[in-house]
Amino acid sequence: MDITTLLQQVKDGTVSIEEAKDQLSLKTYENLDFARLDIDRKNRQDCAEVVYCEGKKDDYLIQIFKKLYSANKEVMGTRASLEQFLLIKDVLPNAEYNEEARIIKVFDPSVNKQLIGKVVVCTAGTSDLYVAKEAIETAEFLGAKVETLFDVGVSGIHRLLDNVDVFKDASCVIAIAGMEGALASVIGGLVRCPVIAVPTSVGYGANFQGLSALLTMINSCSNGIAVVNIDNGYGAGYIAAQINRQSYK
Amino acid sequence: MDITTLLQQVKDGTVSIEEAKDQLSLKTYENLDFARLDIDRKNRQDCAEVVYCEGKKDDYLIQIFKKLYSANKEVMGTRASLEQFLLIKDVLPNAEYNEEARIIKVFDPSVNKQLIGKVVVCTAGTSDLYVAKEAIETAEFLGAKVETLFDVGVSGIHRLLDNVDVFKDASCVIAIAGMEGALASVIGGLVRCPVIAVPTSVGYGANFQGLSALLTMINSCSNGIAVVNIDNGYGAGYIAAQINRQSYK
Amino acid sequence: MDITTLLQQVKDGTVSIEEAKDQLSLKTYENLDFARLDIDRKNRQDCAEVVYCEGKKDDYLIQIFKKLYSANKEVMGTRASLEQFLLIKDVLPNAEYNEEARIIKVFDPSVNKQLIGKVVVCTAGTSDLYVAKEAIETAEFLGAKVETLFDVGVSGIHRLLDNVDVFKDASCVIAIAGMEGALASVIGGLVRCPVIAVPTSVGYGANFQGLSALLTMINSCSNGIAVVNIDNGYGAGYIAAQINRQSYK
Amino acid sequence: MDITTLLQQVKDGTVSIEEAKDQLSLKTYENLDFARLDIDRKNRQDCAEVVYCEGKKDDYLIQIFKKLYSANKEVMGTRASLEQFLLIKDVLPNAEYNEEARIIKVFDPSVNKQLIGKVVVCTAGTSDLYVAKEAIETAEFLGAKVETLFDVGVSGIHRLLDNVDVFKDASCVIAIAGMEGALASVIGGLVRCPVIAVPTSVGYGANFQGLSALLTMINSCSNGIAVVNIDNGYGAGYIAAQINRQSYK
Amino acid sequence: MDITTLLQQVKDGTVSIEEAKDQLSLKTYENLDFARLDIDRKNRQDCAEVVYCEGKKDDYLIQIFKKLYSANKEVMGTRASLEQFLLIKDVLPNAEYNEEARIIKVFDPSVNKQLIGKVVVCTAGTSDLYVAKEAIETAEFLGAKVETLFDVGVSGIHRLLDNVDVFKDASCVIAIAGMEGALASVIGGLVRCPVIAVPTSVGYGANFQGLSALLTMINSCSNGIAVVNIDNGYGAGYIAAQINRQSYK
Amino acid sequence: MDITTLLQQVKDGTVSIEEAKDQLSLKTYENLDFARLDIDRKNRQDCAEVVYCEGKKDDYLIQIFKKLYSANKEVMGTRASLEQFLLIKDVLPNAEYNEEARIIKVFDPSVNKQLIGKVVVCTAGTSDLYVAKEAIETAEFLGAKVETLFDVGVSGIHRLLDNVDVFKDASCVIAIAGMEGALASVIGGLVRCPVIAVPTSVGYGANFQGLSALLTMINSCSNGIAVVNIDNGYGAGYIAAQINRQSYK
Amino acid sequence: MDITTLLQQVKDGTVSIEEAKDQLSLKTYENLDFARLDIDRKNRQDCAEVVYCEGKKDDYLIQIFKKLYSANKEVMGTRASLEQFLLIKDVLPNAEYNEEARIIKVFDPSVNKQLIGKVVVCTAGTSDLYVAKEAIETAEFLGAKVETLFDVGVSGIHRLLDNVDVFKDASCVIAIAGMEGALASVIGGLVRCPVIAVPTSVGYGANFQGLSALLTMINSCSNGIAVVNIDNGYGAGYIAAQINRQSYK
Amino acid sequence: MDITTLLQQVKDGTVSIEEAKDQLSLKTYENLDFARLDIDRKNRQDCAEVVYCEGKKDDYLIQIFKKLYSANKEVMGTRASLEQFLLIKDVLPNAEYNEEARIIKVFDPSVNKQLIGKVVVCTAGTSDLYVAKEAIETAEFLGAKVETLFDVGVSGIHRLLDNVDVFKDASCVIAIAGMEGALASVIGGLVRCPVIAVPTSVGYGANFQGLSALLTMINSCSNGIAVVNIDNGYGAGYIAAQINRQSYK
Repeated sequence: MDITTLLQQVKDGTVSIEEAKDQLSLKTYENLDFARLDIDRKNRQDCAEVVYCEGKKDDYLIQIFKKLYSANKEVMGTRASLEQFLLIKDVLPNAEYNEEARIIKVFDPSVNKQLIGKVVVCTAGTSDLYVAKEAIETAEFLGAKVETLFDVGVSGIHRLLDNVDVFKDASCVIAIAGMEGALASVIGGLVRCPVIAVPTSVGYGANFQGLSALLTMINSCSNGIAVVNIDNGYGAGYIAAQINRQSYK
Repeated sequence: MDITTLLQQVKDGTVSIEEAKDQLSLKTYENLDFARLDIDRKNRQDCAEVVYCEGKKDDYLIQIFKKLYSANKEVMGTRASLEQFLLIKDVLPNAEYNEEARIIKVFDPSVNKQLIGKVVVCTAGTSDLYVAKEAIETAEFLGAKVETLFDVGVSGIHRLLDNVDVFKDASCVIAIAGMEGALASVIGGLVRCPVIAVPTSVGYGANFQGLSALLTMINSCSNGIAVVNIDNGYGAGYIAAQINRQSYK
Repeated sequence: MDITTLLQQVKDGTVSIEEAKDQLSLKTYENLDFARLDIDRKNRQDCAEVVYCEGKKDDYLIQIFKKLYSANKEVMGTRASLEQFLLIKDVLPNAEYNEEARIIKVFDPSVNKQLIGKVVVCTAGTSDLYVAKEAIETAEFLGAKVETLFDVGVSGIHRLLDNVDVFKDASCVIAIAGMEGALASVIGGLVRCPVIAVPTSVGYGANFQGLSALLTMINSCSNGIAVVNIDNGYGAGYIAAQINRQSYK
Repeated sequence: MDITTLLQQVKDGTVSIEEAKDQLSLKTYENLDFARLDIDRKNRQDCAEVVYCEGKKDDYLIQIFKKLYSANKEVMGTRASLEQFLLIKDVLPNAEYNEEARIIKVFDPSVNKQLIGKVVVCTAGTSDLYVAKEAIETAEFLGAKVETLFDVGVSGIHRLLDNVDVFKDASCVIAIAGMEGALASVIGGLVRCPVIAVPTSVGYGANFQGLSALLTMINSCSNGIAVVNIDNGYGAGYIAAQINRQSYK
Repeated sequence: MDITTLLQQVKDGTVSIEEAKDQLSLKTYENLDFARLDIDRKNRQDCAEVVYCEGKKDDYLIQIFKKLYSANKEVMGTRASLEQFLLIKDVLPNAEYNEEARIIKVFDPSVNKQLIGKVVVCTAGTSDLYVAKEAIETAEFLGAKVETLFDVGVSGIHRLLDNVDVFKDASCVIAIAGMEGALASVIGGLVRCPVIAVPTSVGYGANFQGLSALLTMINSCSNGIAVVNIDNGYGAGYIAAQINRQSYK
Repeated sequence: MDITTLLQQVKDGTVSIEEAKDQLSLKTYENLDFARLDIDRKNRQDCAEVVYCEGKKDDYLIQIFKKLYSANKEVMGTRASLEQFLLIKDVLPNAEYNEEARIIKVFDPSVNKQLIGKVVVCTAGTSDLYVAKEAIETAEFLGAKVETLFDVGVSGIHRLLDNVDVFKDASCVIAIAGMEGALASVIGGLVRCPVIAVPTSVGYGANFQGLSALLTMINSCSNGIAVVNIDNGYGAGYIAAQINRQSYK
Repeated sequence: MDITTLLQQVKDGTVSIEEAKDQLSLKTYENLDFARLDIDRKNRQDCAEVVYCEGKKDDYLIQIFKKLYSANKEVMGTRASLEQFLLIKDVLPNAEYNEEARIIKVFDPSVNKQLIGKVVVCTAGTSDLYVAKEAIETAEFLGAKVETLFDVGVSGIHRLLDNVDVFKDASCVIAIAGMEGALASVIGGLVRCPVIAVPTSVGYGANFQGLSALLTMINSCSNGIAVVNIDNGYGAGYIAAQINRQSYK
Repeated sequence: MDITTLLQQVKDGTVSIEEAKDQLSLKTYENLDFARLDIDRKNRQDCAEVVYCEGKKDDYLIQIFKKLYSANKEVMGTRASLEQFLLIKDVLPNAEYNEEARIIKVFDPSVNKQLIGKVVVCTAGTSDLYVAKEAIETAEFLGAKVETLFDVGVSGIHRLLDNVDVFKDASCVIAIAGMEGALASVIGGLVRCPVIAVPTSVGYGANFQGLSALLTMINSCSNGIAVVNIDNGYGAGYIAAQINRQSYK
């Protein structure tokens, strides 16, 4: 994009001001003073801005949910407490809450959401489930069909091998593991599609709040693996849904 | 996959031995004693096994290249020295070498390779180029068209913003940065497709051989970002090509 | 194991389906949906699956205990709270609880368990006792006779030297120490049998939750020492019982 | 300063004792036994000593506030709880409290404080606000005019670029960011004046209580950036006010 | 800056295209393909882009120096080897080299450079001199007068106290120290102006290549201290010159 | 010591059994089963065993105190809670408690304890006082006279320099500092006697629970400094008292 | 062992001096001044002292080899260079050298060494071979029969599963892996016997010289795994041989 | 020391200028421009300044040695290369060199140096000898008699116990150990006098250049232990000599 040309075109009237703003990637946002809501994000990135609820003041949270819902006809919040959900439900009665995932969602009932493709979410143990649930909720919110495979850690490798056909036609696999970061490597050697690895803080002693699992995954000897932050089910669900959308569009 | 059923089917003859092996994911491999070549990987994962050359003995290396080439009609080696390339060229005269990327490639000239889609490789600085070259060579070997955008680090953000139209229709962006791990976050906020972030060991002092950039990227506040190992251009190229192939197939 | 041959044999009927499954190490397990119980593990590894209780939902825990008890006539749970014990006792009245070790055990009273061999459990200080108790309970559950030697840290080396005859005929020594990881090295220089070292998180300041003791033990200059995770009395008891069983069978 | 000469001058009477003490930088202080108040600091460094309230005993705190107020006609305390504020208000009724910043201030109402210059305080997200407030309160206490720009993190870079004119004529910018330490680098590339970067402990997983953001900022590839401690809004406000005073005096 | 308004003004002709570009901070740069030179930086930030020489290919380096020199009438390169200097001198005969600082400078002899203000550069020991020299060269290139105070580490505190009058009227002090990061704290308690602390990698054992000194300085209990990267004399010289320019303009 | 000779001498009766035990350093101890009390330590090392109270069961604690008191006519316990003190006071009515130091002491009133020599305990700030108190109580219990110098951190170096005459004739200085580990280095340059440095966990952000101060002190450029564990006032008091006893005996 | 009783028995002549020394574990050693050779170790621990060659002076090395060989009729040295081997061969012509393992061995040809049992040594990749060779040589020197399974890393899990029958009747498995520490966990879930895990420094980027693999292994979720130091093939071979000897004696 | 009073006394002539300077601890030093030699240190601290030779320029080094020698009639340099020694010997022919310790010493032959007291230097292994030699040379230079006990690491604890009588009447023990940091703890439990622990960087794998040994020693459970920097034989020798001088004066 040559800016001089663009501005000349604006001057000449051959490009509209809206179009020029678009090309500059300088989209509008809503300034709530305490926050600048990126209400154009759905346009720019296919996904509306998601609210990180933890630590937000009540009145801020309510304003943000209302503003985003009115802009996008849907809104999702992560790391939300039950108290926060009740607050939101008061003002947006369609709000739903998944306690394990700690996610609030609000949909306009008149919109009929279609899920496409296939994302597989695997966990090494049952203690990794809360991260899995966050990933699942996120991926579904962003339009992906999700299948699951829980408790298939490598200490009983046959539990995984018995179920490899679940990976067929998957566009992306999310591999979630704590003390046993090894799960991502094994899956990476079995599948065609990308694997998004999520280290969890589950474990004790030398796990160091997930650092050990993070290092294991970053050092994986398998191909086709990339890693998101410790316990970041949301981040994994997001990128998996992106890949899924591209693959099945 | 229920194994009892499967074995029963083998016994009954309703499933062939080959098919059974396939379902068990227990594919054949070539045992060279010092190595077990995964010559079936191209079938299983769309990509043939790639040779990590560093530290391999000369005779081992030659045997591995010959075996994989004869199995797949193409072979690629990473982290290869010039000396290793000359060894390989002696036995496989079609071998080519990219010194900056440290990659050896051998193709059967009778095969006509088609590149599809669009992967964009960005670097923050010129010192990150050697990692970028490894990513580019890898992605192209695996069938992806690549475009590049070098030296667009965030200390002069206009250099990046001036070029955002390169991201249009990209299936994946690879963001490579050392001391300035920030590049991935900024791109993540501008594009629709997934961003694979590669921290590099470039920098000094408290960069700690790339640890600082790795942490920055893992903690990115943007959506749609996942991270591979420090300086791992190969890993980024691989997963980007996977995503690209799925998106453009 | 050549799979083609094996499958041919299944087809030919010269190998039974059960036998084939066995050779594939793809044993049966119980899918409880939220967990996949490895009920065949006792067969495969001599020891039944052990339940890690911490953080498990009540109904999950009860189902798991009942399933494993009915499969194996015995079951053990680690890191269990008193509340969890009471839940289990309700459905399995033979359940017993060791509060210091935080372990629940259930035995079929009709089975007469024999303890063999000799495992010695040593601690550097009295604060390491809770880890020792977990190791002792585990080793005994897995069939080992245990002797103990507490509070023999190296700051008063004569307390240890006075008691070296306890090591005679031991098949394995478990050395547990926190701030004073040195205990394992000293014992390693005195005994014939392997030493399993357990770092504990006991200590303050630069102990960094057991990291210091872990590093000390991993760097031990004595021979015959291997290390398990920080505070992992269970892991030490398990491997010690394995070694003991092999040595005294 | 040659000491022999100085002492000779004292002896000769050509330099007064007060002047000699001044040159030796060995100023008077108030010994409260449990603390040595640097009541001369306002003279020596333009700013009076500030009280770090956290963990101070009640009677100590009261004595310190009273002593400093009487010496300087103003006093500020950081990391103060509401309880501590109420204690101080009892003895110094002009005391004011900013709960978000956790700062107590007491001014003599007869003194008319002038704010000069321009310091800009930016945050990446809304969760960084509590650090920003500490910085703002501190800079204003030390005489600087402050403008703010909140929630301009790099995941939506247009929110920052839309507002670059706030930096015009600034003497110093304070850039506060947690998981997204990248903000400082981007601002550093846009402005003329020094940027003081404050990493925050906001974030989760591999953020490691702010270490990740600290490393990002220390490694910034932009010029004109220096870093203070994690969450240290006070430290940033202090040095920014120093720079501002020098620039606008 | 409201973009809609701005673009409307461009359209209306009330704002020129150049002016609009300026306000968008989207300045021109020189695309050398392998690098994008920020030749407008001197305008935007008062300082021309500086070349980081280490690891740059010879022909790249020459092109960059020539381009920047022709744009700005002066150019500076850091971390330059003697070999690189000789290359540059061939094409730009006015080039000068400071071997201790590893800096190349080229000036147009017809330009008369004025140094203003006062920056003081202190080192704890003689081993820190190479970092000091980089800071001095940088600060002078950017227009600051520099005074020095070497080998005044706190193990002989009188060496520092004897010389405190050098700090009078300084706009900024640069405190450089390795094993003895303490220097910055002591100076911070003595002066009016900001202190920029530079940790060095000098020392052995638990210094960990400067990490220890970095942590000391970040944790300084004195006010008015901010820190740059380990051994980063250039970064300290840059920000000190910024502060000096503002204070003395 | 040649053991063969020694045993021969025992056999010959030229060395008594007691003497032989002594030479072997294999002294008697009291086996309480849960603990092995080193009741001979006072003989061997001049100081009786000290009780680390934290985490000890009530009945264990009482037995240990009683046993040690009856053996040595005095006993001290560190890291003791008020509850523990009340327990001890019940059975040993002479027990005294210092709440800041968290130390219990019991003396036989018929013994007249003499304090000798001079140990100086310095702190950088008032928040380091609780560590100082532990050091003081310990040193006095072990027979040392103690003088103190509080709140003399290096951010106001004159507070320390004004008081250097307290160091005259000291046999040992204990330097306690948190965020400002620099205190030990400055004192180390001023005094004749050894300095024992104690890092404290006081501070925030990048202090990392005292690690930063520990590294500063270990890297001190001054001579005659050695370091004990973070917050380990007891350890510092102990070694200081040892040095003091040797110097003044 | 009660010492008083023991010494009494010496005195009475009911226990011989030799026996007494034995019980005290205070065996004889050879004092070479620069070293104290533990020539009794073979008696005490079944294995003679092994020489760590790296960094030893030539004349020291020769003396040590000769002394140990004459005491034990065999001697082994680890981390030996070719130069060191040639030195030893000069004085002990039976010396043999394994260059990959960097091990020197000398046997008395008249002694007929019997290997018993079964230890299995596995590696994840071919780059881990040098560590494997050290483990193999060590285990064989200490009397164990060894079988191997190389290049069975989890990125192609079928290579391992195809070969599980090698584990039958093994007394111990050594699992060696670098970037892919996961191998130990998978094997741990498949076998009956203990697994000794060896992390290697193979890998790049965030492997941090083996720390990542070490943490993976210490955190393994499988039972029956203990860990030795990074690259410590010797240590693994030693403890495996101990376990093997006990199991097959 | 009250400064006002002191200056008054100077003015009154009741205190001489020299005495005043003395009390201010602001002693004279020699400014060589590149260094400020603390030539008064011998007066102030009983020990002359010692030269850290590594990295010093030749001409600087020569000037410093000459200046200190002429001031103190003796001079010592640490971390000196053979080349540096030859340079010094040229100008100070009495210079002597200990290559293992890397120390240069120059004495005035007319001065008759007396060694007093007793410092014991112990090492765990033979690889720690170079650190021991630095400690020995330093302690002797500062007037202490030294005895040694090498290769008494805890993996063969009897080697240490056999020699405990060397500790009798010692004023200080220096315990030097690498991978086996445990030595200091064991000695700490056996002796009356303080133990100075020196971690060494000897070892491999998870030793992390001495960090592991440093942490072990800092966490020692024995009393009377303090720690100096990794490989810092000089620092240990210095403080041991201080303690020795005080104990035997």
